[in-house]
Amino acid sequence: MTAPAPVADTLDLAAVRMAVDRTLEDFLTDKLKRTDVDEMPELIGYLGRFLGSGGKRLRPLLCVCGWYAAGGGPELDVVLRAAASLELFHAFALIHDDVMDGSDTRRGHPSAHRALEAVRGDGDARAAEWFGVSSAILLGDLALVWSDELLTGSPMTAGQHHAVRPVLDAMRSEVMQGQYLDLLATGKVTGDLKQAMDVVRYKTAKYTVERPLHVGAVLAGGSHAGLEACTAYALPVGEAFQLRDDLLGVFGDPRVTGKSDLDDLREGKRTPLVAMAVQRADEQQLRVLKTLLGRPDLDAEGAGAIRGVLEATGARQRVEEMITDRHAAALQALERSGFPPAVTAALKDIAGAATVRSS
Amino acid sequence: MTAPAPVADTLDLAAVRMAVDRTLEDFLTDKLKRTDVDEMPELIGYLGRFLGSGGKRLRPLLCVCGWYAAGGGPELDVVLRAAASLELFHAFALIHDDVMDGSDTRRGHPSAHRALEAVRGDGDARAAEWFGVSSAILLGDLALVWSDELLTGSPMTAGQHHAVRPVLDAMRSEVMQGQYLDLLATGKVTGDLKQAMDVVRYKTAKYTVERPLHVGAVLAGGSHAGLEACTAYALPVGEAFQLRDDLLGVFGDPRVTGKSDLDDLREGKRTPLVAMAVQRADEQQLRVLKTLLGRPDLDAEGAGAIRGVLEATGARQRVEEMITDRHAAALQALERSGFPPAVTAALKDIAGAATVRSS
Repeated sequence: MTAPAPVADTLDLAAVRMAVDRTLEDFLTDKLKRTDVDEMPELIGYLGRFLGSGGKRLRPLLCVCGWYAAGGGPELDVVLRAAASLELFHAFALIHDDVMDGSDTRRGHPSAHRALEAVRGDGDARAAEWFGVSSAILLGDLALVWSDELLTGSPMTAGQHHAVRPVLDAMRSEVMQGQYLDLLATGKVTGDLKQAMDVVRYKTAKYTVERPLHVGAVLAGGSHAGLEACTAYALPVGEAFQLRDDLLGVFGDPRVTGKSDLDDLREGKRTPLVAMAVQRADEQQLRVLKTLLGRPDLDAEGAGAIRGVLEATGARQRVEEMITDRHAAALQALERSGFPPAVTAALKDIAGAATVRSS
Repeated sequence: MTAPAPVADTLDLAAVRMAVDRTLEDFLTDKLKRTDVDEMPELIGYLGRFLGSGGKRLRPLLCVCGWYAAGGGPELDVVLRAAASLELFHAFALIHDDVMDGSDTRRGHPSAHRALEAVRGDGDARAAEWFGVSSAILLGDLALVWSDELLTGSPMTAGQHHAVRPVLDAMRSEVMQGQYLDLLATGKVTGDLKQAMDVVRYKTAKYTVERPLHVGAVLAGGSHAGLEACTAYALPVGEAFQLRDDLLGVFGDPRVTGKSDLDDLREGKRTPLVAMAVQRADEQQLRVLKTLLGRPDLDAEGAGAIRGVLEATGARQRVEEMITDRHAAALQALERSGFPPAVTAALKDIAGAATVRSS
């Protein structure tokens, strides 16, 4: 595999992104060539379109940042494949999450289980729905095992393999633990901020930011102190990212986010935003939250009433403050990190983009 | 990890089975100890009960047979962990398959998505069903990544790692391809025997028999000729195993099989049995198949009518003949294999048990 090298002294994130995308494309093209089952190209082709349909490539970019933070090295192929592997793993996570959450849209397109309903193209609506869900579960499974294949097929040394494996194992278990906590909590309207923050930590802060940095860092032979510097930056950025995501899920513009602004409310997603609103709500506000949050048939008017409570209790404002605090903590951690200036600059950009974004 | 060594010159399959089970138990016990999320033990505990609730351990046994067929070696830990890893992978496959098929029972117990409905224990039936399905998808994902962890955490040499990886990659893609073909075909009542046999080959013959043998064989440094000898035995045994499974799914005694004898018919599972019945059916028989197969509300009377057609067309008898032919082909392949006598004897037992079983 040949890939354009990002220039190490400036860390061109756009070039990294293109190299990661090319790695993904090459991998799937190879899969298409090798399949001897006539029906597979349609499914593989859909996975390629899913991967190509957007996404911030946050995990791959952070993985490459972690690599350079720990000193980098000449074998860029190794870290690019690891970065691409994280993106393929993330495709798995999104596809299965959307099935579990019953989300109809993702990145402005139908979610996988909705898009795949059309593949069989016969039968009634019930059969189409069954096929969509079943084949999305399967496609997620395939993305998961292929993410592994993409990584282990790279020219890693035995030492690199030995170093990266426990990080990936931890990452995969953590995100699934976070998802399980999320499932257990969904639909229960309570003021338990700690549990809501636990979900944020496992499902996003560690999975989206800390572990990708660690993967890159250990591949470059990073020290324990270097990994801790990654963590000190990663956890506040990751929390801020998810808190912003929660705000966008409720207050964002669907034309910009690519996601419905009703899904999170209909699903009764138990976010720190909701937990703090419950803590601060008076009797009437609490009744609004308890009767409307998690209703699958919630309409625009009901959603407006919930948004009103999230505003009036000050919960929205408090989440904004939490984001600001965490953004500041991440920048302080960067100053103390001792990372090369190009890496510090890139991570500063990422922290900014993750916390003040509109999509 | 210490494990009782099966005696190499007789290949005590019961001892292998116990050693594999202990490896699985040790792995999950370690996972329980290490989790710092209060809610995980319940899910991990359920996975342990699922693994302990039966199952033939066919894949682990074949993996160990493959190891001895290729000459074995002193590092029994390596092959036992690989064998246990295959069983954990299979737990993933069963849990997700049952979600996709909507099967309510497995091994005489509620299937995972049914059993897990009880964990939240609140809310209405719809919420319980959603939680059961979502947490079963997640538990399957966890079993899949942990199967990987179980394998890669073993003291493999770099050479063993290099040899086993492509076999596992192929196995995982193959079983998913087979499952996809199955999803595409489900509910379509046609006489396409070739496609039905393709599903059998990918979903069972390669996944259940050939690849487990290969995994063991390559870990012992098996030659290309040795792998081909495994394949010559494996494909007919695997096909016979699945054809027997199809017969048991329709004609078996649920008290013995642990599965409903209506599920396959209600699901409209497109087996070689059904394909041959369609090929041989007269107009009236075809109408019975087309109107009744795949009806979610099929009752005992309707199932009886379908069974009548499967008998009267001679399809059931033809499948029995196919099983007999394949069993014979497998035994011939064993004679030519050059495997050590203890391995040949064990594989002969497995072939017999897989094809004449009643559960």
